[in-house]
Amino acid sequence: MKKSIARATLGVLALSLTTLASAQVKPEDQIRYRQAGYSFMSWNMGKIKTNLEGSYNKDQVIAAANAIAGIANSGMGALYGPGTDKAIGNVKTRVKPEFFTDGDNVGKIARDFNAAANELAKVAASGDAAAVKTAFGEVGKNCKACHDKYRLED
Amino acid sequence: MKKSIARATLGVLALSLTTLASAQVKPEDQIRYRQAGYSFMSWNMGKIKTNLEGSYNKDQVIAAANAIAGIANSGMGALYGPGTDKAIGNVKTRVKPEFFTDGDNVGKIARDFNAAANELAKVAASGDAAAVKTAFGEVGKNCKACHDKYRLED
Repeated sequence: MKKSIARATLGVLALSLTTLASAQVKPEDQIRYRQAGYSFMSWNMGKIKTNLEGSYNKDQVIAAANAIAGIANSGMGALYGPGTDKAIGNVKTRVKPEFFTDGDNVGKIARDFNAAANELAKVAASGDAAAVKTAFGEVGKNCKACHDKYRLED
Repeated sequence: MKKSIARATLGVLALSLTTLASAQVKPEDQIRYRQAGYSFMSWNMGKIKTNLEGSYNKDQVIAAANAIAGIANSGMGALYGPGTDKAIGNVKTRVKPEFFTDGDNVGKIARDFNAAANELAKVAASGDAAAVKTAFGEVGKNCKACHDKYRLED
């Protein structure tokens, strides 16, 4: 039991660079900040999608991809601290309890997502729309991998 | 009158790389996305502050500064489209009406903010805590310049 908690904790910690931040941010603010991060990434994913489907603006795609990578690499694991597994007052969360116990798998998804976000930023800089399309698809797949397994339906 | 509207519009447009995105995002979602961006930057500013006041973790500061710069450069001006100057249903906004008419000044604040955020990301990479402290202060000053003038009190 202790071992599985330790493993799970390790996995969640692996999401963040350090746990320093979570110790100083109230649980309800951790939930708000992580939702803000995902929301802002979602806006930028939408912009890249629009560029891929319509006329391609290299600078806009670079800016969007850099925003996504910057957020992905910011150590959001620190925003899943103790007490953030369920609603706090009117601050709701859609994260499933399994997220906090599936440490190894959550860590893997987080690493894959970050790698995909970094690849997207890299190819965006090249301005190669076909490469961006592929990299964008990979980021989307990684978003979905986590949503399918660890996000509650609305 | 027309000229001043045109000038104001130009200033707000200057905040974004293109206006493409705002045309396709509902006004209430524009408000939500811009709030998400500021909120996530705020978390990362807090982390840098903690590092400057306590033990300095170079990697955490780099990650936080890159997240801030990525968001700052993402073209948030597109999130101030028509209809986003006041609450929409239960989606509130604290932006003052002057923000939408002070185009030149808003444009200047936005450019200064972006330059400060980029400088912060640059010096963070060097690991020079004293330089980060100065650059962090500049970003904070630019946040405050906009809040003081264009944000309603709670």
